[in-house]
Amino acid sequence: MRAYHRSVTVDTAARKEIVERARQLDATDPLADARTRFVLPSHPGFTAPGAARAEARTDTPDEVVYLAGNSLGPPASGVAQRVAEAIGSQWGQLLARAWTTCRWLELPVRIGDRIASLIGARPGEVLVADTTSVALAKLVGAALAAAPGKRIVVSTADNFPSDLYAAMGAAQLAGARLEVVERGELEAALRDLESRVAVCCVTQVDFRTGALYDVGRITRSAHEAGALMLWDLCHSAGAVPVGCAEHDIDLAVGCTYKYLNGGPGSPSFIYVRRDLQPELSNPIPGWLGHRSPFDFDLDWQPAHGVRRFLTSSPPVLALAALDAALDAFDGISIEAIREKSKRLGQLFVDVIESEPVPGLTLASPRNADERGSQVSLSHLRATELSTAVAERGVIGDVRPPDICRFGMSPLTLSHEQVVRAATTITTVARDLAVTGDR
Amino acid sequence: MRAYHRSVTVDTAARKEIVERARQLDATDPLADARTRFVLPSHPGFTAPGAARAEARTDTPDEVVYLAGNSLGPPASGVAQRVAEAIGSQWGQLLARAWTTCRWLELPVRIGDRIASLIGARPGEVLVADTTSVALAKLVGAALAAAPGKRIVVSTADNFPSDLYAAMGAAQLAGARLEVVERGELEAALRDLESRVAVCCVTQVDFRTGALYDVGRITRSAHEAGALMLWDLCHSAGAVPVGCAEHDIDLAVGCTYKYLNGGPGSPSFIYVRRDLQPELSNPIPGWLGHRSPFDFDLDWQPAHGVRRFLTSSPPVLALAALDAALDAFDGISIEAIREKSKRLGQLFVDVIESEPVPGLTLASPRNADERGSQVSLSHLRATELSTAVAERGVIGDVRPPDICRFGMSPLTLSHEQVVRAATTITTVARDLAVTGDR
Repeated sequence: MRAYHRSVTVDTAARKEIVERARQLDATDPLADARTRFVLPSHPGFTAPGAARAEARTDTPDEVVYLAGNSLGPPASGVAQRVAEAIGSQWGQLLARAWTTCRWLELPVRIGDRIASLIGARPGEVLVADTTSVALAKLVGAALAAAPGKRIVVSTADNFPSDLYAAMGAAQLAGARLEVVERGELEAALRDLESRVAVCCVTQVDFRTGALYDVGRITRSAHEAGALMLWDLCHSAGAVPVGCAEHDIDLAVGCTYKYLNGGPGSPSFIYVRRDLQPELSNPIPGWLGHRSPFDFDLDWQPAHGVRRFLTSSPPVLALAALDAALDAFDGISIEAIREKSKRLGQLFVDVIESEPVPGLTLASPRNADERGSQVSLSHLRATELSTAVAERGVIGDVRPPDICRFGMSPLTLSHEQVVRAATTITTVARDLAVTGDR
Repeated sequence: MRAYHRSVTVDTAARKEIVERARQLDATDPLADARTRFVLPSHPGFTAPGAARAEARTDTPDEVVYLAGNSLGPPASGVAQRVAEAIGSQWGQLLARAWTTCRWLELPVRIGDRIASLIGARPGEVLVADTTSVALAKLVGAALAAAPGKRIVVSTADNFPSDLYAAMGAAQLAGARLEVVERGELEAALRDLESRVAVCCVTQVDFRTGALYDVGRITRSAHEAGALMLWDLCHSAGAVPVGCAEHDIDLAVGCTYKYLNGGPGSPSFIYVRRDLQPELSNPIPGWLGHRSPFDFDLDWQPAHGVRRFLTSSPPVLALAALDAALDAFDGISIEAIREKSKRLGQLFVDVIESEPVPGLTLASPRNADERGSQVSLSHLRATELSTAVAERGVIGDVRPPDICRFGMSPLTLSHEQVVRAATTITTVARDLAVTGDR
């Protein structure tokens, strides 16, 4: 019976119009060529490695549409070679001397500057180090240490749980408490807790729904409450303009393996506004954040600038990959990326809504301006749905209890691909609905 | 005149005996073949990249003797390919699904188990994560949190400064203080401060002099004082047996880029004795240390076992390199490595002492049992000496104010190479002495 349901074909006028619109958008897409900057898997073995599927290589509908770049971006073309060089020509040939010859110690700030340009920060405000939760713990700890009279950290229940764990850990160490409020209550809470909040930390894009906070407004609310504002930009960097300088953002962290495509477990970045840097200290001090690391002083003297938030040796191989990954952004503005991201998301939503399927609902904001670069759908059998669409080459992921996430990566996706993916999803969901009814 | 001094040749009977001994040791060296497990630079361009030196490639004396493996070990043969596979076949082909398919989340504990076998720890006691100073801050923080009545952390002035910075940071956060005592006063200090010390943290091998602490004795002293003992094993792992289980060591951290050859800035490891794991909590909690990371609970529930000390996503590319690097230890016991390390060090010392050079003195303990796997020499013009010997293919490094360090990596060095290196050093030092007198 499954075959019968599979063969259901929906081809309404609305759908045709959307496909046509997608083709036109592709024809005029200023970022259409960006996908050539990546190595994308195209063979069907991608979803289920094995001989059986590999034989189906010529089957066009099996083209992979990768909508999980919001989880792990694909490798840029130059990554493999850059890392091979770091291993072979740098580490392998120069060994310890490469630290000097290849300026490895400059990587955290040099690559940080490249990320700064994507989040609207200034040179010298960003460094690459640690992991997002460690970076967050450092900045929450720094904010609490700088405001001994303020013993509250505020965050939201829709934050990524690891942020809450790390913020709670840092708060506990400082004898402070973490106050977790609902999304809609954040600004009221900041008003209520005024002058007792050291730092407010929130993720700009909700990892489940893709809902986007108004960075300027929330930052102002935090400032009005006398708190520092710390943004988690994991789902923003490389996809959504942030405007760190424009909005006078105090602190930020983010990972580099989602829209920045730095690779699995690539390091995080740390942003500290220039004028705040001298006032804040790193609660996990280490030699590479010291003013003169190679003097090996017993006494701690923090480095000038953002480098004081470094702790240990930079992960050179991972940084080589990230550096190559960032080349994919050369000559492309974050505003152009955002525009395409919104177009992709809109097409996806239009398909989903063009022919409603029972049980499949939009979990993201309807308005593209209120979404990050992902569209989430709610379905009671989310895992089953996600697996079934993956078998048809459409890769997303699932977040409990009922969310299917689909990331819109503007550098690698065409408009038509997104429409095809959404069509596959509705077809499969209709299948599931019918099967479920039986 | 420099050419004249260069041509001074010393060929005493004592030196001849040492060379002969080295050749015999090489002939019967059970680890002689281990160097084939590495990619070692052999061309002269290693020390000074450029056409001029590359032309001298056939000049035998230019063979590189790499004595800085105590700073950064060389790449093992399988590293380049393993990392290329992680990028190409895993990340590139499977993208986000590789987290499951390739079991990336298991890497920190799986590779930790490999390191456990080299430091005498049991499976499930070691994980690979973060950097050494962050790992140290975690464990010092955990020890302080577990002993609220003890507000002192003890360390030694010969510790690596970054350990002192990180321990100080963790102590400050806990309202505790770091007490730094001289090496010789450690046991007396532990007695004096009894019942007030939460944790004593010391580096087993002095990074300047190579002096080795008696791990069993110091650990007992810490335990007698009611303190946990935390060893920094940066200069031990892969070179010196530690005996974590044998000596009932509580906690340890270490880097993986020295004798473990994990690559520049490769992650650190964290050891927590099995029975202590349930009692200690991670002061930087993050989702991958949670009992059920993919439930995305708002509440923190630490994982069972050592995994609770994980915070964020593992650095997959760096772990691929480290995993391949550890293959070089397959089938080789740490005891055999230690024996060869002592033989290498002894030959090096014998050459240095066979013909004393004014101004060049042994900065390491004379007795091999009291040294780690490096021999340090003191010289007033240490940088000049180190540079001059490097120009002759002998690579060590310098630590202020006057220490030249030479690491004895048993997997990559022959006995004869070490003798040749030491001979070069005395020749160059004699040169400097004569030049200095003029």
